[in-house]
Amino acid sequence: MTTKDKAVVLLSGGIDSSTVLAHALSEGYDCYALSFDYAQRHKTELDYALKVAKALDVKKHLVIRFDLTGIGGSALTGDIDVPKEGGASPGTDDMIPVTYVPARNTIFLSFGLGWAEVLNAPDLFIGANIVDYSGYPDCRPEYLDAFEKMANLATKASTEGRLKFRVQAPLINLSKGEIINKGVQLGLDHSLTWSCYDPMYDISGKATPCRQCDSCRIRAEGFEKAGLKDPLIS
Amino acid sequence: MTTKDKAVVLLSGGIDSSTVLAHALSEGYDCYALSFDYAQRHKTELDYALKVAKALDVKKHLVIRFDLTGIGGSALTGDIDVPKEGGASPGTDDMIPVTYVPARNTIFLSFGLGWAEVLNAPDLFIGANIVDYSGYPDCRPEYLDAFEKMANLATKASTEGRLKFRVQAPLINLSKGEIINKGVQLGLDHSLTWSCYDPMYDISGKATPCRQCDSCRIRAEGFEKAGLKDPLIS
Repeated sequence: MTTKDKAVVLLSGGIDSSTVLAHALSEGYDCYALSFDYAQRHKTELDYALKVAKALDVKKHLVIRFDLTGIGGSALTGDIDVPKEGGASPGTDDMIPVTYVPARNTIFLSFGLGWAEVLNAPDLFIGANIVDYSGYPDCRPEYLDAFEKMANLATKASTEGRLKFRVQAPLINLSKGEIINKGVQLGLDHSLTWSCYDPMYDISGKATPCRQCDSCRIRAEGFEKAGLKDPLIS
Repeated sequence: MTTKDKAVVLLSGGIDSSTVLAHALSEGYDCYALSFDYAQRHKTELDYALKVAKALDVKKHLVIRFDLTGIGGSALTGDIDVPKEGGASPGTDDMIPVTYVPARNTIFLSFGLGWAEVLNAPDLFIGANIVDYSGYPDCRPEYLDAFEKMANLATKASTEGRLKFRVQAPLINLSKGEIINKGVQLGLDHSLTWSCYDPMYDISGKATPCRQCDSCRIRAEGFEKAGLKDPLIS
């Protein structure tokens, strides 16, 4: 690639997407960060996405707002409680947790595709991984491959042969501990990242991680395996 | 199918999607209409989507709002003028018009997929067609097939084998004239549908079709070929 290649990077403000952004920058891409305000319970993550985008050298950071509560079906956007204290999916008989948001990555990647086409950016980066993941179907390689195929049939730029889109998931086979170590190597300040699905807010609006939800536990285990202290937890 | 099967129907308020809704209802589906307020220039179409949804027997009509102006790249959401008086794409050297909105159907279908999963609805209806179409890549059968494949890898319901999604485009091979005749056969009142991309507004906010944009011209030609008078034009 040339140093002028552009990439759209989905940025939630979590460890994975922030690491992917640092990775894409280290590879020489001009990065356009894309975040979503979808009425998520843990909207605090957006403040962290802003911090990460500001700290790293992105060309632009775009936040798209929409409301998924009308669709529902998730603990992150509806009335279902976020499960605590282990067990992927309490109260259900399957392994995909209630924090799964229907079609979320498909919606996110679709907006990313639209922006990538306008920017003339062939690369779409996403922080999906399948090791210490939460069992979400839209993080699997076969899903990402199918999205890429569809994307190349969907747009004016790809139909006219001007762009061939690639969905890049550089963390796909890394454990959370490995991702944290990779972030450290890339100079990522993990205190700028947020993971908790169900934060507590004090009277000033400051959020504190619950330290009990799946995402908090996976983060804590990751730092433990990386042999590091989480700078977000004082 | 049983009469209890559910379907999500993308409803813009135009002739095609309204005809698809009437068709899906006539096939016995419980229909959930989904519209989008994406800061489109011709937002009037949403008023017509509401009229159509109210006139037909939908179970629910959901409007999802987001703003595509940050992404841009289209005459329908940005500063580019809507072309008038013929020629698919004045000022450009290709056949896909500037009214193309990057990744629009992908974004729409993605939200539809999320809602379909929550509703337990296997069928997603879209008014795409390739005869009197505007050259949009995301209206072609190969695109719709690729979206369907991706959709079945994307969700919890399909991964667990509880739902197999189908993207249905029953108008795909019909001309605009044929679509209008089909609508009439289904009892659709075309005065409830809107096509113009670039309406004029009077002081009360009432919209009038420009009768010059691609969409107005295709509509007028369709009514002419169907041997009917457009009830929207007094």
